[in-house]
Amino acid sequence: MGRILCIGLGPGDPDLMSVKADRALRNARQIAFFRKKGRAGQARAIVEGRLHPEAREFPMEYPVTTEIAFDSAEYDTLLAGFYDEWAEKLTALALHDDVLVLCEGDPFFYGSFMHLHVRLKSRVPVEVIPGITGMSGCWTATGLPITWGDDVLSVLAATLPEERLVRHMREADAFVVMKLGRNLPKVRRALEAAGRLDEAWLVERGTMPGESAGLLTDMPDAAPSYFSMILVHGKGRRPGKDAS
Amino acid sequence: MGRILCIGLGPGDPDLMSVKADRALRNARQIAFFRKKGRAGQARAIVEGRLHPEAREFPMEYPVTTEIAFDSAEYDTLLAGFYDEWAEKLTALALHDDVLVLCEGDPFFYGSFMHLHVRLKSRVPVEVIPGITGMSGCWTATGLPITWGDDVLSVLAATLPEERLVRHMREADAFVVMKLGRNLPKVRRALEAAGRLDEAWLVERGTMPGESAGLLTDMPDAAPSYFSMILVHGKGRRPGKDAS
Repeated sequence: MGRILCIGLGPGDPDLMSVKADRALRNARQIAFFRKKGRAGQARAIVEGRLHPEAREFPMEYPVTTEIAFDSAEYDTLLAGFYDEWAEKLTALALHDDVLVLCEGDPFFYGSFMHLHVRLKSRVPVEVIPGITGMSGCWTATGLPITWGDDVLSVLAATLPEERLVRHMREADAFVVMKLGRNLPKVRRALEAAGRLDEAWLVERGTMPGESAGLLTDMPDAAPSYFSMILVHGKGRRPGKDAS
Repeated sequence: MGRILCIGLGPGDPDLMSVKADRALRNARQIAFFRKKGRAGQARAIVEGRLHPEAREFPMEYPVTTEIAFDSAEYDTLLAGFYDEWAEKLTALALHDDVLVLCEGDPFFYGSFMHLHVRLKSRVPVEVIPGITGMSGCWTATGLPITWGDDVLSVLAATLPEERLVRHMREADAFVVMKLGRNLPKVRRALEAAGRLDEAWLVERGTMPGESAGLLTDMPDAAPSYFSMILVHGKGRRPGKDAS
């Protein structure tokens, strides 16, 4: 009996995956990864050129992504069936050899793998190798520390209700807003209501070719992708503050 | 003129540093790292066996760690002088060759390097390579995803005032509390007041030899180190929730 090994690929630059993940990847003979139907897939793109010549690939294609509302019963049923089916298939594949599952960022931090993990963990040995999160890649791209001293950092999804976004933007010292895409107008309003708009950075394609980072107020026409992020840096304790 | 290159070493397991950081480390001829006076230093321990035979080492020894209150004027003056001095020394070293600075976790996420960064960035080219955070190592050690769907994650320091801890523990879906040490009794009271005590995990030495992870309520006598963490997992959106 083999194992299911999920590796975090990090924020995008292939050299930012861990030594451990890189080694597992180059040795793996069965590799599964999520992708949108008809696309190459970002996880698969990151590992290009690093697979063993005998590796068999198993693209796991989402039955739906943004075509249906994510809080509808239909979406829930489709996705649950999809994860059930792949949990079966991966368990069968693991009968004779290890299966490597690719995951962008860090698998246990908003990763899709967790929906397989809950279905697999009682049936087959599962190991997870953490990765650098997409948000670490984005704040590194701004060239400024995200948190200092005792700063509170909150991680928010742009899909949250506007009033909840405002509350957390007021309470936290530093914050990150993910899943932007068409939610940017709502996030802009929330930033303004929380009095944090002037501090907000927009980062696109952090650590990847075409990376860009700048103040949101300098980008009135920004149409960011789902993978872009808004960041507001903390300003906590700094010895000899005047030095900065 | 050389560069100052700060590499994130990740949560503790040396194989969890990135391919990029590992490569930079093995080639570096000048290596600086923070440590407490009289100690080997955790960052230096992580890289043991990976340094170039000709590498010169520069331990940067904190003039003070927990002997003086971190919010006192004396602490501020001592630390500011220490960072000023090392910014000078590293700039001088960078005149003839690159200088690598080691940083546990991710440099721009509560890392000490940021205090050098603000002093260096206008004087010498500085590059930061992100790393896997200590908290990613800790939630991976629990074997459970920290966040699902639209869960809000907040990162808190145990050194915060108790009432601020309670407020964030109530508002966030998932949270992490760092800098535990002698602050554990306060954190326990805050968890209780926020109604989250029964969900709290304590993780010590995440991804390192001697790693332990379990429910805090099963550990009434826990005396965790400063580097231990409390984690409460989110319970957000999961397609086919009954499957879990």
